[in-house]
Amino acid sequence: MRATLIHGPRDIRVENCPEPTLLADTDAIVRVTASCVCGSDLWPYRGVSQTPRPRRIGHEFIGRIEAVGDGVSTLTVGDFVVAPWANSCGACPPCRHGVQVACEHRAHWGGVDEHGLPVDGGQGEMVRVPNAEGTLVAVPGVTEPDQALSKSLLALSDVMGTGHHAALGARVEPGRSVVVVGDGAVGLCGVLASKRLGATRIIAMSRHSDRAALARAFGATDIVAERGAEAAAKVRELLGGVLADSVLECVGTAESMDQALRCTRPGGALGFVGVPHGDDPLPMSVLFSKNISVAGGAASTRAYLPELLVDVLEGSINPGLVFDSVMDLEQAPEAYRAMDERRAIKVMLIP
Amino acid sequence: MRATLIHGPRDIRVENCPEPTLLADTDAIVRVTASCVCGSDLWPYRGVSQTPRPRRIGHEFIGRIEAVGDGVSTLTVGDFVVAPWANSCGACPPCRHGVQVACEHRAHWGGVDEHGLPVDGGQGEMVRVPNAEGTLVAVPGVTEPDQALSKSLLALSDVMGTGHHAALGARVEPGRSVVVVGDGAVGLCGVLASKRLGATRIIAMSRHSDRAALARAFGATDIVAERGAEAAAKVRELLGGVLADSVLECVGTAESMDQALRCTRPGGALGFVGVPHGDDPLPMSVLFSKNISVAGGAASTRAYLPELLVDVLEGSINPGLVFDSVMDLEQAPEAYRAMDERRAIKVMLIP
Repeated sequence: MRATLIHGPRDIRVENCPEPTLLADTDAIVRVTASCVCGSDLWPYRGVSQTPRPRRIGHEFIGRIEAVGDGVSTLTVGDFVVAPWANSCGACPPCRHGVQVACEHRAHWGGVDEHGLPVDGGQGEMVRVPNAEGTLVAVPGVTEPDQALSKSLLALSDVMGTGHHAALGARVEPGRSVVVVGDGAVGLCGVLASKRLGATRIIAMSRHSDRAALARAFGATDIVAERGAEAAAKVRELLGGVLADSVLECVGTAESMDQALRCTRPGGALGFVGVPHGDDPLPMSVLFSKNISVAGGAASTRAYLPELLVDVLEGSINPGLVFDSVMDLEQAPEAYRAMDERRAIKVMLIP
Repeated sequence: MRATLIHGPRDIRVENCPEPTLLADTDAIVRVTASCVCGSDLWPYRGVSQTPRPRRIGHEFIGRIEAVGDGVSTLTVGDFVVAPWANSCGACPPCRHGVQVACEHRAHWGGVDEHGLPVDGGQGEMVRVPNAEGTLVAVPGVTEPDQALSKSLLALSDVMGTGHHAALGARVEPGRSVVVVGDGAVGLCGVLASKRLGATRIIAMSRHSDRAALARAFGATDIVAERGAEAAAKVRELLGGVLADSVLECVGTAESMDQALRCTRPGGALGFVGVPHGDDPLPMSVLFSKNISVAGGAASTRAYLPELLVDVLEGSINPGLVFDSVMDLEQAPEAYRAMDERRAIKVMLIP
């Protein structure tokens, strides 16, 4: 089968790889119908994080189950499934707490499982899924989704659940004002999640007309193009003299966190989901004096999938609109380039 | 009148000072019946924060109103009042949000008000209170509290409200397990606040038998004397293999924050109220991977006073037990020594 590997900075290749087989009773084999490139895939692509040896890549995919191990009873061959970006057993204490990202038996797409066995990446034709029952979510009544539905289902693997996580971390609820820092797919889904949670005033920060337009389509009421202190002043002006109740940090840089803190009112809540790089620390003194709460981190999209899936199937949310580009899996190198150069918001790859 | 000044590290003096007078329509003059020394007063006392020139000190006091400005209508001469540690106007956006510590018109005890006029410290015979209506809380039906009630009312000025703030930041509620880091007056009040909010399992960290005994009296079910990784292991053991849902950080050092983070389960909540020194930053990567939420900071005890006052007057909480020492105001230097050397949990000063 064909699958994508990263060999090093800006070196993405689609290669022939052995087809996966069941290695444990709790495994499933999924034939991938669509996967995609994540903003976090760009960190090794850009060389910000290291790639000491070639490895499979991709952690978002949807597809059909081709085989299940003897220990799998809640999933069946033929089920159409969404795979969350984080694999999880579903039974350990963190999983029972709804924090599947901290699963004690987590396998890593493109890495290894807890037994040291290799796990496929999502950007390929097939994937062995350890902890299948705790990980995969079957889509009821769907066997061959059209492209629009595929996009929204694929968005539930990561970006929509991550935007929702940011909104929950920022305590978004009806009546609260919201600022979203970051106009990537996650930030845009943060706008959609905030709208879904009842926010009526949502300020999106963007300097790109296409992304700003999608933010508006997702529920943003205002777009702010300024940065730094000017952006905070603009937010204060838009909100009648106060800063925002809820701020979603959806980038992961020191600058974006600083921007988010500047936009949060005293006593406000900051939800952060941008993957931190280096270890940009949070300034305690600002949190202390302004009473800003901070919550978020890696999103357990598995926990949110059932709830968000209902809305996707009902058509009340359409997070798949973040996929503004669709390419054949063989075009994965171009997909990375398009994402890296911000020519595409998010690229869906079809094996 | 007599009042306390700090001249520099370990140099506390009680001196003659002019009696305060009304300087603004919104002022009140309070004759102090009791004040106390705060753990945060020990930072300048120890030289950790600077004292460039002698200044009045103390930010917790109770007493009777002797005079009010023409703009004060909700408070009357003769009212017995509690003064929260943070002065606040009660009308600006942060005050309306219940974040009085960020009041846009805040005056500082022992410092200056927004007009640059000097404000008395709490450790003295009388205090001019700017923003009197937004700051002071009258105690209904009380004119001359006995010493036991005085202690509990004085605790509402800071330590009990601050412990409550930590518990709210840590999302304490019935069914959640709690760890309290810090066995000072605030930590002990954090135990009491957690018990009051319905926690049934409360682990206090202490190595002092008197403080541990008071923690147990306040509702702690377990005492952990270990530190660092050993303390976290002990918490995990006590809680049946998982770390705590809610952790209260009530010290303010890098070590105590590290201890608090070590004790928090993935997805758990950390409430922090220890005043940060230096600018010990929060490690983003830990918060991100473990999904630990952080909330707290300087406590707006003014916001909590009405609710906690009801419980004190009903006798359902007795936070005044943290005052294990009572001294005459003239003994203020000894009060600081006793606090500094941890011979006293908290010292009440009677003018």
